[in-house]
Amino acid sequence: MKTYKEMTKEELMSLKAELEKMYEDVKGKGLKLNMARGLPSSQQLDMEADFFNTFDSTSEFKSETGLDCRNYGELLGIAEARKLMGDMMGIPADNVIVFGNSSLNIMYDTVCRSMVHGVCGSTPWCKLDKVKFLCPAPGYDRHFAITEQFGIEMINIPMTEDGPDMDLVEKHVNNDAAVKGIWCVPKYSNPQGVVYSKETCERLANLKPAAEDFRIFWDNAYAIHHLYEDNQKELPEIISLCEKAGNPDMVYEFCSTSKVTFPGSGVAALGSSKKNLDYVKSIITIQTIGHDKLNQLRHVRYFKNFDGMKNHMKKHAEILRPKFELVLSRLEEEIGSLGIGSWTKPVGGYFVSFQALNGCAKNIVAKCKEAGVTLTGAGATYPYHKDPDDSNIRIAPTFPPIEELAAALDVFVLCVKLASVEKLLEA
Amino acid sequence: MKTYKEMTKEELMSLKAELEKMYEDVKGKGLKLNMARGLPSSQQLDMEADFFNTFDSTSEFKSETGLDCRNYGELLGIAEARKLMGDMMGIPADNVIVFGNSSLNIMYDTVCRSMVHGVCGSTPWCKLDKVKFLCPAPGYDRHFAITEQFGIEMINIPMTEDGPDMDLVEKHVNNDAAVKGIWCVPKYSNPQGVVYSKETCERLANLKPAAEDFRIFWDNAYAIHHLYEDNQKELPEIISLCEKAGNPDMVYEFCSTSKVTFPGSGVAALGSSKKNLDYVKSIITIQTIGHDKLNQLRHVRYFKNFDGMKNHMKKHAEILRPKFELVLSRLEEEIGSLGIGSWTKPVGGYFVSFQALNGCAKNIVAKCKEAGVTLTGAGATYPYHKDPDDSNIRIAPTFPPIEELAAALDVFVLCVKLASVEKLLEA
Repeated sequence: MKTYKEMTKEELMSLKAELEKMYEDVKGKGLKLNMARGLPSSQQLDMEADFFNTFDSTSEFKSETGLDCRNYGELLGIAEARKLMGDMMGIPADNVIVFGNSSLNIMYDTVCRSMVHGVCGSTPWCKLDKVKFLCPAPGYDRHFAITEQFGIEMINIPMTEDGPDMDLVEKHVNNDAAVKGIWCVPKYSNPQGVVYSKETCERLANLKPAAEDFRIFWDNAYAIHHLYEDNQKELPEIISLCEKAGNPDMVYEFCSTSKVTFPGSGVAALGSSKKNLDYVKSIITIQTIGHDKLNQLRHVRYFKNFDGMKNHMKKHAEILRPKFELVLSRLEEEIGSLGIGSWTKPVGGYFVSFQALNGCAKNIVAKCKEAGVTLTGAGATYPYHKDPDDSNIRIAPTFPPIEELAAALDVFVLCVKLASVEKLLEA
Repeated sequence: MKTYKEMTKEELMSLKAELEKMYEDVKGKGLKLNMARGLPSSQQLDMEADFFNTFDSTSEFKSETGLDCRNYGELLGIAEARKLMGDMMGIPADNVIVFGNSSLNIMYDTVCRSMVHGVCGSTPWCKLDKVKFLCPAPGYDRHFAITEQFGIEMINIPMTEDGPDMDLVEKHVNNDAAVKGIWCVPKYSNPQGVVYSKETCERLANLKPAAEDFRIFWDNAYAIHHLYEDNQKELPEIISLCEKAGNPDMVYEFCSTSKVTFPGSGVAALGSSKKNLDYVKSIITIQTIGHDKLNQLRHVRYFKNFDGMKNHMKKHAEILRPKFELVLSRLEEEIGSLGIGSWTKPVGGYFVSFQALNGCAKNIVAKCKEAGVTLTGAGATYPYHKDPDDSNIRIAPTFPPIEELAAALDVFVLCVKLASVEKLLEA
């Protein structure tokens, strides 16, 4: 079989006509399908019914330390929740503050705090002429939206199969004191599913930042979100790596149970050094009296311990695995031999990252939308929504039921083919 | 009976010796009592057991509009929760955003947002040379802590029985463009229990602020926290008053169920004009994907409607009323005729405000502490912790069981007497 690039103009014209006819047929179906966001499916959420039986009218609402979780207090979170979230990150409870329902909110507030108050006594970033963040891309659109809202200049860092291009990271961080942060999703990265390699983590830990208030924003959103039991990639624990490298305060780590229990009704946490946490505490003690301790207690009593949480995630994997496998097999069958796209093959996380021919991503997403299939906006995975190659598309297969996912993928591959033919005919 | 001021030096010396002996006896008891913070008692929290039966394994988790509350979405809160919280404030659901568990957190973020991003397009406050807030005092220490943390200059405004001294408020707000806000607890104010009068509210609504980004921070924390069914003071609804006066965007109103259901596990809300809420939404859409909708749904299903919430608060009143009545009767019996203090007689809220002889408050609080009774720190009710007269003490009678409260009040009145004698002997 010929790849599209090997075809003659006439062959492409004929193919185009054929694809257009199919596309018109698809549009006529009035589909309404969504592969845009990394939402758990309702099947994943259904499994949580027991979660609501953790308390009843005879419950003790006391934490391990005897605190009544129904009343005010315990700004850093109850001890057993700090332990559980610490286990998720592979760090001691003392290095954890448990917050509310959203790790994104913790990240936002962490950037905001640095803007207004500085970092452990440094000049507030809003008083500086220029603040820059490194943005491994493609990456998570909501990260980039935070730094954009605060007027922080974002620098694209290409992603490799081992994580961000470390030569570039070192060049920027070690030489430019305006570089104050880097966004990282180190495990099953959004959108590629990349797990940062040991070497990448070690090079990160051994950075020699020009700015003393440089921090790694380590969004460990998919720490335990494996698809396969026997094919999990280990991520080195970054906080101890940094400590060993003489950079004990260089990381903020974020995690949550948003995709373990419930998006919006889970528990989120910050992991960091004692010095960083003491500083954060000194600021947030004015912001709030405390977070939702009943929800913290509910989570701990439900899972009992980290093993309980890991077992629970095996059930999620059983639901998600067939969806990811369907994406990969459909892509392979339909366009594997056509030379019009490549994609990642993640073993965890929530996404597959698709690389179209340069200049085709926007067109593919628009065509899908017209045919009733919503994808993450083209460009969303890059700072300022600007994909320099107009090539990356994030596929989020978790939410739709598998039949709908199959239908959406049919539309997707058709639009990839059609947009690719159009692009090749332009040349 | 003589007042202390009418006593001779000899009489005071003799009284002092007697009181000192009693004080030594009390210290020997090793008490450990707390009247420091406005915490609900565990008896109030016990009443909520049913609250946890709102969901079970067969529950529908759909909001009125069909949204699955277990998943992401609905940044502004589910419709029925916006309605319930709107009813609490006496405003339509459209004027409400439901947030997370803490109205203090909303207030903090509202100030923070104004510092970093401005107010509906105005210059961010952090770019201005000077930002000032009016602080009716005595007032809520955590309000003052927020403005202090952001380096906002706080101006004391004396409180009257009808609310803040409005002549002073008008003078500052209408003439000084650096004045960007005023902290108000308009109903059963913290700590006096004052309800702002109709005239006060109308004068507030009719302010002609020199700054277009001036806002009233209307912390309606005790909106439905009455002690008596037949002795409730009505508070005018401020948002519509401001609208009528041609100042539709001048108020942010805050409320929560922290002292209705659970401190830390309740629901908090912001009420304001459409223009203000649209602006807030445009910022917070980057900060979070949404708040805890299951907790919102839990609250709505438990109370059913605002009447359910009001009925619930009658049970709280039955628990709290005897405590407040004990405070007032003990103060009257023990020092009512001695001329060494005055106090407010609130019909709602969480506090009684005590005015000692000038220069005595710190000494009284220190003496109580030494005898095992913790009070709110003297000065805490003023900006920068500076009570110009060293006179105000906030009494928080809600948390201790009534026997402990009685014991704590015995210590309190003894310390008031002793500190007053010491002060009079100084003269």
